[in-house]
Amino acid sequence: MAMRSDSRDRMLDTSAQLFRRQGYAATGFKQIVAEGGGPIGSLYHFFPGGKEQLGAEALARSGGRYAHLIDAVFERTEAAADGMAEWFELAAELLERTGFSDGCPISTVALEVANTNDRLREVCAEVFRSWQSKIAARLEEEGHAPERSAALAGFALAALEGAFVLSRTTRDATPVRTTGAIVAETLRAG
Amino acid sequence: MAMRSDSRDRMLDTSAQLFRRQGYAATGFKQIVAEGGGPIGSLYHFFPGGKEQLGAEALARSGGRYAHLIDAVFERTEAAADGMAEWFELAAELLERTGFSDGCPISTVALEVANTNDRLREVCAEVFRSWQSKIAARLEEEGHAPERSAALAGFALAALEGAFVLSRTTRDATPVRTTGAIVAETLRAG
Repeated sequence: MAMRSDSRDRMLDTSAQLFRRQGYAATGFKQIVAEGGGPIGSLYHFFPGGKEQLGAEALARSGGRYAHLIDAVFERTEAAADGMAEWFELAAELLERTGFSDGCPISTVALEVANTNDRLREVCAEVFRSWQSKIAARLEEEGHAPERSAALAGFALAALEGAFVLSRTTRDATPVRTTGAIVAETLRAG
Repeated sequence: MAMRSDSRDRMLDTSAQLFRRQGYAATGFKQIVAEGGGPIGSLYHFFPGGKEQLGAEALARSGGRYAHLIDAVFERTEAAADGMAEWFELAAELLERTGFSDGCPISTVALEVANTNDRLREVCAEVFRSWQSKIAARLEEEGHAPERSAALAGFALAALEGAFVLSRTTRDATPVRTTGAIVAETLRAG
């Protein structure tokens, strides 16, 4: 039972990495197998709904993992602005460590499927909503009104997502670092 | 000669729309033909370098068109913050008018190719740099130091790109509008 679960999880993790780095359309079962995702028969066995089911589960899994990381960062930082600043710094370090391949695990697929696959789009939307609401909750704890907290959280998340786009494209972590500094300033100003 | 140029331009525009809405990997010559991009023989004739050449030219063309739009918006607005606010509002209206299909013409492809196609990545990077430098130049005119202007411009562009991701994914223009308002506040604060 543990082995079954391990294999399935490995397939999800391998798929998630490929989706994040090159997108959904460019990633096929064959490549997932080639990258160590397990035998192709097992892929069809574990994901009878095919690539769409695999995509939906891989996105949800990555989204959940990053949600825990948001909690961890906010737990060890004083103010929401400091938490977001650390979040951007972790993002910059991840980009540099991975040769600018590992940005947001959701946004590459999100942009591809927004108008072509409503099931996957909705999974991505749910992940973004969960991240935004965690940031908003932290801002509310600091005394911001709920509506303002939601707006600031959406802004901070948008800035991070867009900075990933600029940094991955230019192969330079500067956009993530400078954007993070300005977002932190903005959150401190309220 | 004019007809030759018209056909070629139509192929580029059809391709650019498909790349923007569903990405690079999902878009094939067959679909470009089906969507009115011209006979497939002409596609191979005009773009002997195949899909990559077509992609590179379509991205550069969209990038140039938006660069002119940035100039136009800045010409008719008083402050850089007002120009960026209008830019976000135009983006929100475009999303609503097109059923959330038409976001940034570059970023979907940019995220897909950042680690898989260096030629297309570099075209996307060049477009982002050109947009950022236009915003930065406007901020310098208002008296910001060059380094600060570049940072604020990168931040504003990142926020717009990320807000497009959130709004397209959630099918709701709110992230673009609220992010635009906060970016304008931040630029006004300097």
